[in-house]
Amino acid sequence: MLCVVIDQQALLLEDRVTPSPGPGHVLIATTASGINAADILQRRGHYPAPAGWPVDVPGLELAGHVVAVGPDVDPQWMGRHVCAIVGGGAQASHVLVPADHLLVVPEGVAAAEAGGFAEAFLTAYDALALQAQLRASERVLISGASGGVGTAAVQIARHLGAHVTAVTRSAHHGELRALGADEVCHPDQVSDVAPVDVVLELVGASNLQLVLGRLAPFARVVVIGLGGGNRLDLDLRILMATRATLTGSTLRSRSHEEKSALAQRVREELLPAWATGALRVMIAGTFPLTEPEAAYAFFAQPGKFGKVVLTQAAAP
Amino acid sequence: MLCVVIDQQALLLEDRVTPSPGPGHVLIATTASGINAADILQRRGHYPAPAGWPVDVPGLELAGHVVAVGPDVDPQWMGRHVCAIVGGGAQASHVLVPADHLLVVPEGVAAAEAGGFAEAFLTAYDALALQAQLRASERVLISGASGGVGTAAVQIARHLGAHVTAVTRSAHHGELRALGADEVCHPDQVSDVAPVDVVLELVGASNLQLVLGRLAPFARVVVIGLGGGNRLDLDLRILMATRATLTGSTLRSRSHEEKSALAQRVREELLPAWATGALRVMIAGTFPLTEPEAAYAFFAQPGKFGKVVLTQAAAP
Repeated sequence: MLCVVIDQQALLLEDRVTPSPGPGHVLIATTASGINAADILQRRGHYPAPAGWPVDVPGLELAGHVVAVGPDVDPQWMGRHVCAIVGGGAQASHVLVPADHLLVVPEGVAAAEAGGFAEAFLTAYDALALQAQLRASERVLISGASGGVGTAAVQIARHLGAHVTAVTRSAHHGELRALGADEVCHPDQVSDVAPVDVVLELVGASNLQLVLGRLAPFARVVVIGLGGGNRLDLDLRILMATRATLTGSTLRSRSHEEKSALAQRVREELLPAWATGALRVMIAGTFPLTEPEAAYAFFAQPGKFGKVVLTQAAAP
Repeated sequence: MLCVVIDQQALLLEDRVTPSPGPGHVLIATTASGINAADILQRRGHYPAPAGWPVDVPGLELAGHVVAVGPDVDPQWMGRHVCAIVGGGAQASHVLVPADHLLVVPEGVAAAEAGGFAEAFLTAYDALALQAQLRASERVLISGASGGVGTAAVQIARHLGAHVTAVTRSAHHGELRALGADEVCHPDQVSDVAPVDVVLELVGASNLQLVLGRLAPFARVVVIGLGGGNRLDLDLRILMATRATLTGSTLRSRSHEEKSALAQRVREELLPAWATGALRVMIAGTFPLTEPEAAYAFFAQPGKFGKVVLTQAAAP
């Protein structure tokens, strides 16, 4: 199988032996693999893969077709078009995935969109619905709204019935409104935003610093991205006055069981809306799996709208 | 009635007209009124009383006897020895209190202890049991453990079955162990503490800064005191790696209904243990209500163990 391999911060292509699925697993012939900020961190030597996952092949999400199943896995998975998050190794022609984590891609969804769904939508759904407990008619502020997770989060928040303020440095204000944002602003304008019940912080300390003065009583702040820095100057009086809670998480290091439970929630809560087109994966650009350096360079540029995805032709 | 009055940061004594209780209220002839850090802040012009409470009479807790009841209040309250939190005005010979907030003082409890119970124990119970959801056998770290809230919190945490680490700059290590602390340490030794599930931060940023590296997965940090500063240098990576949550609150500004609900929880969960002596109010010192300056000066000194309480003889 063909793999993108991190070798001293360079991205190489290697041909490796295609593995066979063990118990509970399937083998997927990949058609698309999204790029995430975690891949950039991993390439730089930070954020290593959790135990049990490929250590030098990046990639946390993929879509493709099931081409082999483990001894105890329902053979009806064979041939299905699926997507999933993985702990690493998604940027390869073949990937082993726990069957519990598979999401069936709705009919008619393009390969690139399927390859960019899992990490973005599971991350955003987990943060908004499960961690922040975002409820209908609450106000949510989403920073970094133009990115892969951001464009997913805007749609999910709207899907949950919230009032959505999308914050972006990009010019994609109209596109964010079209996705369901009620208002769109630059980070410098956050001080004019009405107090918010939930903050999904995808950029990090630089953005969150500006939002701290805009927390409504009992606000919930969930930090899941740190591209804009990790040191927050936090005035604890804000927490005492608002009774806000501040938390953070990553998806990658969670247990098999927790990922399974999250996948089940997403099957129930999001896949029907993905099937109707009410939720869509925004694609900023696609690159062949054989051109990872170009894809990563594009990913690193500001101003994109949506996901960057590595693609390859479906196996015959 | 005799009142302690804040006048341009001085504490004066004034004789004012004793009020009559309106609907839902009782009038208490005070025997004891605890001093809290909030009183010091209010004296300095910060932390004003919430709407509906005396603006210039300090004091958030008291004990005494019911001497009059409002038109719709059960007359059986008359003569009962009770304690309560109030939004302000407790440092006076007579205080109006909502009947919903009254706690019956167990037989045999001394007046000074009753006067120092409500704010400390409601605050600590709310933070530990309701906000942090502290569970049996979890590890809890309590900073500022020698103070009024701290000594209450150590006992409540032990009562809830937790493993208690008490942090204090004082020399009262033996006393804290006697109250139920499993270990006692100076703030400089926090880096040696095993990771904790719950932090009750009573001192503020200076202490919390030291604790941030000791958070267990899913730790809950509740900030309810800021004497040691309010600016926290928070590395957001800690929240993402541990999935800890950080929150804060004050009791004073809460709604009537929320205080009623908290009082009911404390009646059920703590009063039986107070009645048996399993929970006790530690008294660092008592002063006559007529000597508030001396009492506030004593309160401001470090190294005390427990509450400072203003007392007066019971009305005839």
